[in-house]
Amino acid sequence: MRAIVIHAAHDLRIEPVPVGRPGPGEVRIRLAVGGICGSDLHYYHHGGFGAVRLREPMILGHEVAGYVVEPGPGVEGLREGDLVAISPSRPCGGCRFCLAGMPNHCLNMRFYGSAMPFPHIQGAFREELVADAAQCVRADGLTPALAAMAEPLAVCLHAARRAGELLGRRVLVTGSGPIGCLAILAARRAGAVEIVATDIAAAPLVHARAVGADHTVDMATAPDGLAPWTADKGMFDVLFECSGAAAALAAAVPALRPGAVVVQLGLGGDMTLPMQAMTAKELDLRGSLRFHEEFPIAVRLMQAGLIDPSPLVTHTVPLAQAERGFELASNRAVAMKAQIRFA
Amino acid sequence: MRAIVIHAAHDLRIEPVPVGRPGPGEVRIRLAVGGICGSDLHYYHHGGFGAVRLREPMILGHEVAGYVVEPGPGVEGLREGDLVAISPSRPCGGCRFCLAGMPNHCLNMRFYGSAMPFPHIQGAFREELVADAAQCVRADGLTPALAAMAEPLAVCLHAARRAGELLGRRVLVTGSGPIGCLAILAARRAGAVEIVATDIAAAPLVHARAVGADHTVDMATAPDGLAPWTADKGMFDVLFECSGAAAALAAAVPALRPGAVVVQLGLGGDMTLPMQAMTAKELDLRGSLRFHEEFPIAVRLMQAGLIDPSPLVTHTVPLAQAERGFELASNRAVAMKAQIRFA
Amino acid sequence: MRAIVIHAAHDLRIEPVPVGRPGPGEVRIRLAVGGICGSDLHYYHHGGFGAVRLREPMILGHEVAGYVVEPGPGVEGLREGDLVAISPSRPCGGCRFCLAGMPNHCLNMRFYGSAMPFPHIQGAFREELVADAAQCVRADGLTPALAAMAEPLAVCLHAARRAGELLGRRVLVTGSGPIGCLAILAARRAGAVEIVATDIAAAPLVHARAVGADHTVDMATAPDGLAPWTADKGMFDVLFECSGAAAALAAAVPALRPGAVVVQLGLGGDMTLPMQAMTAKELDLRGSLRFHEEFPIAVRLMQAGLIDPSPLVTHTVPLAQAERGFELASNRAVAMKAQIRFA
Amino acid sequence: MRAIVIHAAHDLRIEPVPVGRPGPGEVRIRLAVGGICGSDLHYYHHGGFGAVRLREPMILGHEVAGYVVEPGPGVEGLREGDLVAISPSRPCGGCRFCLAGMPNHCLNMRFYGSAMPFPHIQGAFREELVADAAQCVRADGLTPALAAMAEPLAVCLHAARRAGELLGRRVLVTGSGPIGCLAILAARRAGAVEIVATDIAAAPLVHARAVGADHTVDMATAPDGLAPWTADKGMFDVLFECSGAAAALAAAVPALRPGAVVVQLGLGGDMTLPMQAMTAKELDLRGSLRFHEEFPIAVRLMQAGLIDPSPLVTHTVPLAQAERGFELASNRAVAMKAQIRFA
Repeated sequence: MRAIVIHAAHDLRIEPVPVGRPGPGEVRIRLAVGGICGSDLHYYHHGGFGAVRLREPMILGHEVAGYVVEPGPGVEGLREGDLVAISPSRPCGGCRFCLAGMPNHCLNMRFYGSAMPFPHIQGAFREELVADAAQCVRADGLTPALAAMAEPLAVCLHAARRAGELLGRRVLVTGSGPIGCLAILAARRAGAVEIVATDIAAAPLVHARAVGADHTVDMATAPDGLAPWTADKGMFDVLFECSGAAAALAAAVPALRPGAVVVQLGLGGDMTLPMQAMTAKELDLRGSLRFHEEFPIAVRLMQAGLIDPSPLVTHTVPLAQAERGFELASNRAVAMKAQIRFA
Repeated sequence: MRAIVIHAAHDLRIEPVPVGRPGPGEVRIRLAVGGICGSDLHYYHHGGFGAVRLREPMILGHEVAGYVVEPGPGVEGLREGDLVAISPSRPCGGCRFCLAGMPNHCLNMRFYGSAMPFPHIQGAFREELVADAAQCVRADGLTPALAAMAEPLAVCLHAARRAGELLGRRVLVTGSGPIGCLAILAARRAGAVEIVATDIAAAPLVHARAVGADHTVDMATAPDGLAPWTADKGMFDVLFECSGAAAALAAAVPALRPGAVVVQLGLGGDMTLPMQAMTAKELDLRGSLRFHEEFPIAVRLMQAGLIDPSPLVTHTVPLAQAERGFELASNRAVAMKAQIRFA
Repeated sequence: MRAIVIHAAHDLRIEPVPVGRPGPGEVRIRLAVGGICGSDLHYYHHGGFGAVRLREPMILGHEVAGYVVEPGPGVEGLREGDLVAISPSRPCGGCRFCLAGMPNHCLNMRFYGSAMPFPHIQGAFREELVADAAQCVRADGLTPALAAMAEPLAVCLHAARRAGELLGRRVLVTGSGPIGCLAILAARRAGAVEIVATDIAAAPLVHARAVGADHTVDMATAPDGLAPWTADKGMFDVLFECSGAAAALAAAVPALRPGAVVVQLGLGGDMTLPMQAMTAKELDLRGSLRFHEEFPIAVRLMQAGLIDPSPLVTHTVPLAQAERGFELASNRAVAMKAQIRFA
Repeated sequence: MRAIVIHAAHDLRIEPVPVGRPGPGEVRIRLAVGGICGSDLHYYHHGGFGAVRLREPMILGHEVAGYVVEPGPGVEGLREGDLVAISPSRPCGGCRFCLAGMPNHCLNMRFYGSAMPFPHIQGAFREELVADAAQCVRADGLTPALAAMAEPLAVCLHAARRAGELLGRRVLVTGSGPIGCLAILAARRAGAVEIVATDIAAAPLVHARAVGADHTVDMATAPDGLAPWTADKGMFDVLFECSGAAAALAAAVPALRPGAVVVQLGLGGDMTLPMQAMTAKELDLRGSLRFHEEFPIAVRLMQAGLIDPSPLVTHTVPLAQAERGFELASNRAVAMKAQIRFA
């Protein structure tokens, strides 16, 4: 069985790894599709981000779907051949955050493809995977490509819940990559009546419009493009900040109404923010990290046809061309979401 | 100019009333369509409801749309010929509830067609209407019939906001008349992933399914029909109680999960509730009354195609046949929303 | 070792029960004090309440404190001689409600002294008790009598959190028994600026004033006593309904402002409520059941001197006179909280 | 009549200004006491802050109390001789934020002593003042010095409400000047069970302890002083950031639990924040600006003895020595709140 292993920045290898057997409550899965995420790209290009650094080889990947090959002893509800979306989130279920309904802050989290603890948590870009049955959500009716979108969609559903009221609200999205575009879909599904998306490149904004943004602004060419929404102290009720760029958030502040909510999804290290204006407007800046119960909800919303991220999957490469996939995913002018086909 | 005036139970007359002229900030409107609401029917059948009783003749109606005929002095943004949805809500803007952002609880409210104060607040079922420009929302792109649905839709958008989080939630709607069906539309727009509707008659449930209910239960013929949702202390996150019948709420309690929200829309007088079970489940029973900022939002959501209540308008009668309209609207086996055509 | 066992209504016996030994993670405790709660009295007088019925003998009691006698293997942080308040709440830690941060709704709850499941969950009125270390909160600095008040205080802290904002708010408490009086203390601690308490007897209101109620109303002798707070649609922001009597809640409604929160603590079976008025006021009626993290908080607040329920402990009897304690606790004209001294 | 007028940085003059007469709904007041606020000091030392700059002479002051001298026509509830706390907040009552219950964001706010609009809004440091009766809250039972504390206390009550749940919570306060110390009082009143305060000087921390902080940390001498609260991803539930210093907030982040609330009260211009850690912890950073309904609540809480800020008033100078008062107020090693005595 082969896996995609990162050894160091720009040292991505396809290597054999041992095949596992499912224990009680586990499931062996033949992987179908894996989507490349921004954090995968950070490892690929920089060997990490912030204080998170590769210290040993690590299998990448956490946006995956596949087919059940072998349910382990005692597993119910999953049969051979079932397509499943696999949650990469593995909280311990026993720490104070798990018991407080905040498993995304688990003290002992083992999230696929994370170099945060050492030894690292190995990821899911491998031809076969043994996972807990509890991680698997049946994805009947979806394509594997869509099932593999459950993870980033869950990230944005969690962010939408963090935002609070969206029904009838005006929403701004800064940064129109995959997470920005999924935030647009989530905000629309939650009832946003007007959605404006920004970026500093033209190509992502085409996708933003394709998934429902009512207006887009290329801040690189139209730095004053948000001016129409700055009247009366600002018109947006909610901002999904998906760029991680301080400049994007700062440029948005004049267009946010007093009391607006900013959901910070982008992970941008230190950011220098206009806190005087933000405080005077009583903005509410909420971090959003991963997801918990939103993963099965993401699957169900796609199954019901209530959210359709399929336009965002722009590229698929076979496992043998994984590195080309990483290069494509890094090229914002060309690709939105690039996925790897494992079988 | 003619108006629809209720004199007493079952004494509905079409009578001439004087034509008004718009003062500063006002608009004269030629009415196009008026929808018949449950409260109109209460006056028609019973001369009131609860302690609210007719004490003088009153023009009925508060779900109306029409065309601007004459903007008064100083009115901007409205021109002759504009189709407008007209909000029947006229808070004073100065009392403590208005200044607290709760104008639906205005101490001096003058809501069209209400016998609550005396003299009564005359309603809007008349060929011409002089309204404040602030009550009028331009409804370009909508039919008059849809524009007249803005009011009951606003009621349900307000209820959806009262419900809190709906994205990815399971929702139960008890009572599938016009308000129940609009609650289905609002809940779906806010992201509900599964919606079940109940009634004690078959006909309304056909409409419930038409506007998106995933399942319907006729409690008259299947009193245990909610049993599939009672596992593990209950599966619904939110109940929109639109029947005003204690039995409907009581039957729903076993299917509501602990901590579920019940939004009470139906006005049912005294209700005998299973408070021990409701307390033990820590249910959160929230009344919902009318709306405030949701009126223009209702128009915008319909304009954007994000909510479409058009399947609910089942009958239209000309003004001359108003009483037949009231009879139709009272017949749940036949009609959902009946509207009167004024021009 | 002796325990207080209820066999049937009015059949309360002091019986020998076997002594246990603490297993890993458990603690053996010599009980010091146990408070008699309203639910204990229901079993004593009626053999249960609502659908909850005694079907076998059951040890009563769940408001207890004692001294550690023997920590079991692996227990840290508790030593022989420590005074501990013992939480009667034993959720499973694994069900969906435990993992959602709602352990008070645990699907497998084993709360001391509950006849809800069968076999019943035996209670804590016994000379010795083996409990999980996780149930024990060190109560250094408190008297055993105060430590035993942690449980009912936790109930009211939970209710206060359910109420939401209390800082600077006007609060009404209906029913001024032990729970009502503890709700007064909790509301004051959370910043209530004015607290009014009602009852239908004079004696409890003396206690209500003693713990901080600014005004009290005896609804039996002054049925219009809440009239001063009915101006402008009502002046109370929050109601803690501690009586379980529909009449108490109904009488309060005119004094509640639109949008007020009603926290229902009293367990009163079916209640006939003025739902039309409650809906029109958009009241928010929230059930409150037991507690979870509020138990250790109750201990800490008492240790810090921030809440002092000691005036509420009016009677203490030795174990041998347990039945007299139950009679005292049932006599609202005489007693507020009656406790049993076990050693 | 004399007033305290700032002409430019360090150019503070006591100058005669004309006496006014109260119109309908207005009240003429003989000022008793005025507290010097941080924003007054900014004008005094720097001629403004951020983009807010003096462009013409401006009377300073907005924390004031005085005695009614002459109620204008139609004023009820205020009589000659009444001591009143005077709110400096004068929203228009008609803009969209006033009508949304957010008057602190009024589009036409005229807050005493603000150089934000031009012409500037003149302040309240004058021997006599004509104010709207609606600004005046009777302060029977308080000293003028305490009545003049209503304004900064209201700021902190508003912040405490912005914080959400405080009952039983652990609270950190960074910056222990007057606002920090009042935040301690507000947090305690709202039920905080443990309060830790920090500063970079020793003197303010003495006051922090005097008003109830359980622990204090001088970050200048003990930069790791918050380490005991960093276990398990952090232990504080709420941070009141009162310093406006990015370093204070950054140092606090490791001691905040995931999901903690940060209320930003300090106005510190641009701040460089550790957003990666803040996002990963899903912190919720909420700006807090001034107050609205909290002003009369501040008076009532002091009248009821529920909050006592009197230890914070460390210095009082007569009007003739106003400049000395400003120098004292600027000296954190000596003074906490300095007030000016007008009569």
